[in-house]
Amino acid sequence: MTAVSPLAPARFPGLLPIDGVRLATAHCGIRYKSRTDLTVVLLDSGTAVAGVFTRSLTAGAPVDWCRKALPLGKARAIVVNSGNANVFTGKAGRKATEATARAMAKLLGCGPREIYVSSTGVIGEVLPYEKIIAALPGAATAASVRAWDEAAQAIMTTDTFPKGATRTARIGGTRVVINGIAKGSGMIAPDMGTMLAYVFTDANLPAKVLQSLLTQGNERAFNSITVDGDTSTSDTLLLCATGKAKHKRVASAADPLLKDFRGKLNEVLIDLAQQIVRDGEGAEKFITIEVSGAASNQAARRVGLAIGNSPLVKTAIAAGDANWGRIIMAVGKAGEKADRDRLAISIGGVKIAAKGGPVPGYDEAPVARHMAGRDIRVSVDLGIGKGSWTVWSCDLTHRYIDINGSYRS
Amino acid sequence: MTAVSPLAPARFPGLLPIDGVRLATAHCGIRYKSRTDLTVVLLDSGTAVAGVFTRSLTAGAPVDWCRKALPLGKARAIVVNSGNANVFTGKAGRKATEATARAMAKLLGCGPREIYVSSTGVIGEVLPYEKIIAALPGAATAASVRAWDEAAQAIMTTDTFPKGATRTARIGGTRVVINGIAKGSGMIAPDMGTMLAYVFTDANLPAKVLQSLLTQGNERAFNSITVDGDTSTSDTLLLCATGKAKHKRVASAADPLLKDFRGKLNEVLIDLAQQIVRDGEGAEKFITIEVSGAASNQAARRVGLAIGNSPLVKTAIAAGDANWGRIIMAVGKAGEKADRDRLAISIGGVKIAAKGGPVPGYDEAPVARHMAGRDIRVSVDLGIGKGSWTVWSCDLTHRYIDINGSYRS
Repeated sequence: MTAVSPLAPARFPGLLPIDGVRLATAHCGIRYKSRTDLTVVLLDSGTAVAGVFTRSLTAGAPVDWCRKALPLGKARAIVVNSGNANVFTGKAGRKATEATARAMAKLLGCGPREIYVSSTGVIGEVLPYEKIIAALPGAATAASVRAWDEAAQAIMTTDTFPKGATRTARIGGTRVVINGIAKGSGMIAPDMGTMLAYVFTDANLPAKVLQSLLTQGNERAFNSITVDGDTSTSDTLLLCATGKAKHKRVASAADPLLKDFRGKLNEVLIDLAQQIVRDGEGAEKFITIEVSGAASNQAARRVGLAIGNSPLVKTAIAAGDANWGRIIMAVGKAGEKADRDRLAISIGGVKIAAKGGPVPGYDEAPVARHMAGRDIRVSVDLGIGKGSWTVWSCDLTHRYIDINGSYRS
Repeated sequence: MTAVSPLAPARFPGLLPIDGVRLATAHCGIRYKSRTDLTVVLLDSGTAVAGVFTRSLTAGAPVDWCRKALPLGKARAIVVNSGNANVFTGKAGRKATEATARAMAKLLGCGPREIYVSSTGVIGEVLPYEKIIAALPGAATAASVRAWDEAAQAIMTTDTFPKGATRTARIGGTRVVINGIAKGSGMIAPDMGTMLAYVFTDANLPAKVLQSLLTQGNERAFNSITVDGDTSTSDTLLLCATGKAKHKRVASAADPLLKDFRGKLNEVLIDLAQQIVRDGEGAEKFITIEVSGAASNQAARRVGLAIGNSPLVKTAIAAGDANWGRIIMAVGKAGEKADRDRLAISIGGVKIAAKGGPVPGYDEAPVARHMAGRDIRVSVDLGIGKGSWTVWSCDLTHRYIDINGSYRS
């Protein structure tokens, strides 16, 4: 058994029930011998859905399926298995996904395009979907409004802790709940991983409003994290709204009524994204990279990701070394406009470099103390414009190599 | 002392003298206590020069200097120090480079823009250039036509072996020599590194012809290698032609007379580039990635680099794991057109995956044997077009983390 990440939260948060959402898990024996590997989320009729998927050009059959289902904007169930990613499995893979969706749809008496399917685990092996289909009736019967923790557990692969986040928000005078669960231990945790996240709410919002909120919120959340710069073939983020809450009708994502909801949704997305970084393979330090003074927000993000993806920066931080020369290097390689003679770098709030060189009289002692901790804060001002972005990453340790160098069997 | 890379060539090659090139080394005590840290290459009057430099936007003062000198197209000396990169050192850095060039120019009675300067080592520390200037007269006196090995030694930082390559070529009926030396142990070996390469020939070629040959040759050589995907602030590649050889006048890089020369020059560039990968920090396996069937050559290169830069592919190879699922993932993240259902992957010449899935009856045993060796060959056909490229990389091992996690002192 792998030890829990030292960056894990103290406990799984208490997620309130959401009217219209029930969850169940099962052990199908797809790969793991003695743990659950199937999560089924049942959604009441009338649930709207939005989604964001991997941009990988070798995406798996389940992602293809979800993409095709999305224009309908309705969801009645999500079926997720761990242990096998059903990626690069050709026709057999497409058949496995479709058969799973059809079996679930038959159980619920809905169309197959209202069933969302995800798979996470080994690439290139045929998914024994009969085992999943056999477990669906039992799961449908056992589903409970409280099984959030169990659901988050069953979708884990190389994850060391289950990931959940919750907020309540107000739409007009009505309180709604937003719950999310996620898995991931690397942007991809290769053979045995992927980033999957599912967010649920009882808010009554049409699919196009959800999609707009999700696409925007995702930019500053899952699209702002990196563990190893490797993009998964299966990344999936779904947002489901059961519509049970009795608030005013909202027809546009720009409606001021959504101000609080949008803010809380973004908090849930960022919370889950950060938990994935905190469970990054081998991670021992959580790194927040704040980039400001960029020509644009996107330029700031690219610089942040160049820093957060640099193996040289990540190995230095693992060693507690405030090696700002490597940050300069990463800024330089990002390819975004920066003024070398106005560039400023701070670590842990202490300014280290500015105006083209080290700050005169720079004292490394307080920075070294900061670097010895678990939460590392790097700030870079490019000295060009007003663009800013925050990226989260983790360090690169020997355990990353152990985890990813261990043979697949 | 660091052990020599297991991928190092058996010995430094025998480099013939080149008429018009003399080399010297010295110990200036810039950072290292008991080894040479200064290389001076003296070039006879009439030497033409071409150069390619880092695209980093935080390039160091020496790169800025060389870029400004290049339009003149003439070189009388190259001065290289190791131990200090003179990067992010502001005005003091610019002054150090300029003073070094001026001192050398005064010794030789030429213009300062005929002096090329490189520095490699720690970032952000002021270069004690007085030590370099003090050593120049002695170096100029001691310079010899044979000191290739010594010159390659003195420019090393985290390198574990000196890098040299040599070929002879014919231009018309005249034999010319092409010698190159290089250093680098990572695209950047951060605080203590950088990629530097210097190639010399007695061919009689104008600067614009040299530049054209160098720019083209570099694409398939240094621009096709990766160790850690981190781009240096100091990468420099110079090609100097002393013009001593008595062959026909060549006015264009397209002249058929240059066919052999171009081929041999490209061999020297690729040889040096591969040696840098073979000295990649912590490298234990040399990886050749052949991409074919791409929409264009550039697309093939980007896919090759996505594979060669993937920490998941590199850690799998370090462990001798023929983990082709990670190669699929890297192809997918490269963002280039690929046909998932026509993609084919071979390792060590054994076809593993094709037509959207694993090859029926695939036997992993011969691939496992290949993966246990030092030289790993990965071939990917994207099934789209005729673009192809070869990229060289190395594995990612614990020693990479040890080298880059050790404190700067």
